[in-house]
Amino acid sequence: MKKQGILTVISGFSGAGKGTVVRRLMEKYPEDYCLSVSATTRAPRENEIPGVHYLYVTKEEFEQMIEEHQLLEYAQYVDNYYGTPKKFVVEHLNKGIHVILEIEMQGALKIKKRYPEALLIFLTPPDAKTLEERLRNRGTEDEATIVKRLKRAGEEAVYMNDYDYIVLNEEGRIDECVDQLHRIICDQQYRVENSSEFIQGMADGLKVFIS
Amino acid sequence: MKKQGILTVISGFSGAGKGTVVRRLMEKYPEDYCLSVSATTRAPRENEIPGVHYLYVTKEEFEQMIEEHQLLEYAQYVDNYYGTPKKFVVEHLNKGIHVILEIEMQGALKIKKRYPEALLIFLTPPDAKTLEERLRNRGTEDEATIVKRLKRAGEEAVYMNDYDYIVLNEEGRIDECVDQLHRIICDQQYRVENSSEFIQGMADGLKVFIS
Repeated sequence: MKKQGILTVISGFSGAGKGTVVRRLMEKYPEDYCLSVSATTRAPRENEIPGVHYLYVTKEEFEQMIEEHQLLEYAQYVDNYYGTPKKFVVEHLNKGIHVILEIEMQGALKIKKRYPEALLIFLTPPDAKTLEERLRNRGTEDEATIVKRLKRAGEEAVYMNDYDYIVLNEEGRIDECVDQLHRIICDQQYRVENSSEFIQGMADGLKVFIS
Repeated sequence: MKKQGILTVISGFSGAGKGTVVRRLMEKYPEDYCLSVSATTRAPRENEIPGVHYLYVTKEEFEQMIEEHQLLEYAQYVDNYYGTPKKFVVEHLNKGIHVILEIEMQGALKIKKRYPEALLIFLTPPDAKTLEERLRNRGTEDEATIVKRLKRAGEEAVYMNDYDYIVLNEEGRIDECVDQLHRIICDQQYRVENSSEFIQGMADGLKVFIS
């Protein structure tokens, strides 16, 4: 049976290694996945490539996208818009390619509300202590920022319950984590919600025997 | 994190090769699985081994099991009772062993109603034509019985929607089918419903950062 790709949202605590895991997943199974690129009205930072990190649009263009329902979800932070363009996602899902949305919790839960068939995966270190160590060991942030990130993680922890799967990213076991993700995503295609065409075909094919 | 085993119900059309697939799954991963043995009041048939095919009990014993809530589910066919003893299932799940219940649709849906965390998998040939061929090629049944089985499959088809996963058992690909089952069952342990202890631990560990 020809299968749709799976709309997959991956979130995780800051410091969970989300970016690395998603990149590795793409590299390992390039034909199975693509990464949704968000649109934003904020200016590109140094090193950011248009169309790779973000689609950079004007405020007017973004508001037109909202008006024309061209976004799966969007949010406004400070003075900038961020959103997920729908067209790219739908086109790839129809080709049987899984589309990964690497977005934060609020956006993730919005997606789930509007697209209950979306798969929500939360990536996490094995425990709070490891999360703290990872944030400190990056050595790129000052104490106040680290504490702010940990506070946010603490506030977010309970919302892990709104995800579908919790996947551990353990130290030195990134390949296990990537394979685990891959298995979970591929298995979704066997879920009954994604098998309705097959079930209908089976029912039709057996109709002749029901007098 | 220490995980519970998954209570897994496997059903399938008569002729779907359910028995063979389940046997192969047990042989391939003997430490991960055990098969729940049903209790029944019917007499053992030739070649049936007590404790392997069924637990054979008297009507009085069975009715006592009902009264003492010792059964996960039970049903009465003609003059005989059939049911799933709870104790064996619970003990093995607590040890982290997945317990397989190979039961028909009605029993399966009863289990799901009472234990929503149970995983329901429906095994099916790839199409109606293949199902018919398999039933005919067994050569063990007369035409009337074959048609009766196909009629029942036709009536059951729509209830596939009440299962969690639909897994295809294609000709000559039994190992793929067994591995697919194994992946689906193992991945359940990462579902959020089976991660509540982990989430609580994470929230507790991060509490210190929330002022």
